[in-house]
Amino acid sequence: MNSAPRAVVFDVNETLSDTTALRRRLDELGAPGAQVHARFLPSVLRDGFALTFAGEPAPFQRVAEDVLRAELGAAGVRERLDRDLDAAVELALGAFSEFTVHPDVPGGVERLAERGFLLVAFTNSSAAQCEGLLERAGVRGRFAHVLSVQDAGPWKPHPDAYAHALSVCGLAAPEALLAAVHPWDVDGAARAGLGTAWVDRAGAPYPSTYRAADLVVPGVDALADALPPPA
Amino acid sequence: MNSAPRAVVFDVNETLSDTTALRRRLDELGAPGAQVHARFLPSVLRDGFALTFAGEPAPFQRVAEDVLRAELGAAGVRERLDRDLDAAVELALGAFSEFTVHPDVPGGVERLAERGFLLVAFTNSSAAQCEGLLERAGVRGRFAHVLSVQDAGPWKPHPDAYAHALSVCGLAAPEALLAAVHPWDVDGAARAGLGTAWVDRAGAPYPSTYRAADLVVPGVDALADALPPPA
Repeated sequence: MNSAPRAVVFDVNETLSDTTALRRRLDELGAPGAQVHARFLPSVLRDGFALTFAGEPAPFQRVAEDVLRAELGAAGVRERLDRDLDAAVELALGAFSEFTVHPDVPGGVERLAERGFLLVAFTNSSAAQCEGLLERAGVRGRFAHVLSVQDAGPWKPHPDAYAHALSVCGLAAPEALLAAVHPWDVDGAARAGLGTAWVDRAGAPYPSTYRAADLVVPGVDALADALPPPA
Repeated sequence: MNSAPRAVVFDVNETLSDTTALRRRLDELGAPGAQVHARFLPSVLRDGFALTFAGEPAPFQRVAEDVLRAELGAAGVRERLDRDLDAAVELALGAFSEFTVHPDVPGGVERLAERGFLLVAFTNSSAAQCEGLLERAGVRGRFAHVLSVQDAGPWKPHPDAYAHALSVCGLAAPEALLAAVHPWDVDGAARAGLGTAWVDRAGAPYPSTYRAADLVVPGVDALADALPPPA
């Protein structure tokens, strides 16, 4: 890192949230939950990024609904569902309001706030979904900003997305550190000039095609301990 | 369609190729084959698109290797593998040289060629992999061009990728029809001015966020029958 950051910008889906409620709801519907769940987020990101190439607005909720409809409506899946396709998609999407945060998140967020960092949540999905997640976890009050790319236009990791978030928060890029489980987000933030922390809960190798993170931590609690005091 | 196309540009991964050999090799290694296979291509596309935002070259082979290394190296998977991670990734990647074409492809390609269409294969992966696939299927000779985005820079569906392919083939956009199983590819080609055919083998709903295809066909053989004679 070029300097000690004074703000920590969190990615939300999978970085803060545990999405296993979606897997559970898919299984409950009769779908092959493990497979559909495994494909869900990469497919949503693929489609959001593709629409970003086109300069087209891509509301996360609508893209997510399209992905679930295609997955659940495919031959070999649709006939296994316990209800019609519309109702199945609705039930699966409802999982977003059940998502919880990972166990390392609440303590890590508290400690970062106590240490004086400005905390920001910045998501490719909707700000409202993120607000709900943070409220349920009892940490909403610790975040100065809850931001969505839906107000910026392009999805992360397009450079304009990070520029938008920095501008809303009144931060210069080196004053902020992005924390994410997703290497594509770490890479995009690094290219935009932010410091970066890769939250590596899975202990998996980091992709060679992406810029390495400044810090690698196993959870948000460890991040709170690893950062130097805010500038 | 604005006019009758004289060229058919085929997407390759999953549109021509059947990728179940990857699933088989993953199972053989001890990995949860269905899940890793389900995540594989959306994840590779996500990463190739993200690197396209950055203007960074993203060779498919390297991105694919990174994705497999992360999936197979994750906690809960690595310890189930029957060999070390490098060897496991190599075995999985080797599946590309085993991919076959879908049963509707050879007859459809023959018929399109007999009807006088100029045939082009245009892939986000390597031209060499695509050449191998078409050779094994005995239809390489029917294709006038086998093109990769690796010579263009950006991955499909970035508009520059289609412009590159059209330029190499000496085609104006309305003279070409893109055929793909992937809605993101249909959408990108439509925005670039090409005609489009969605090859829908799964019978799944088409995403609402993407431009609809001019034609929807259940396979390449049906496409050969559905097109008007080449202009």
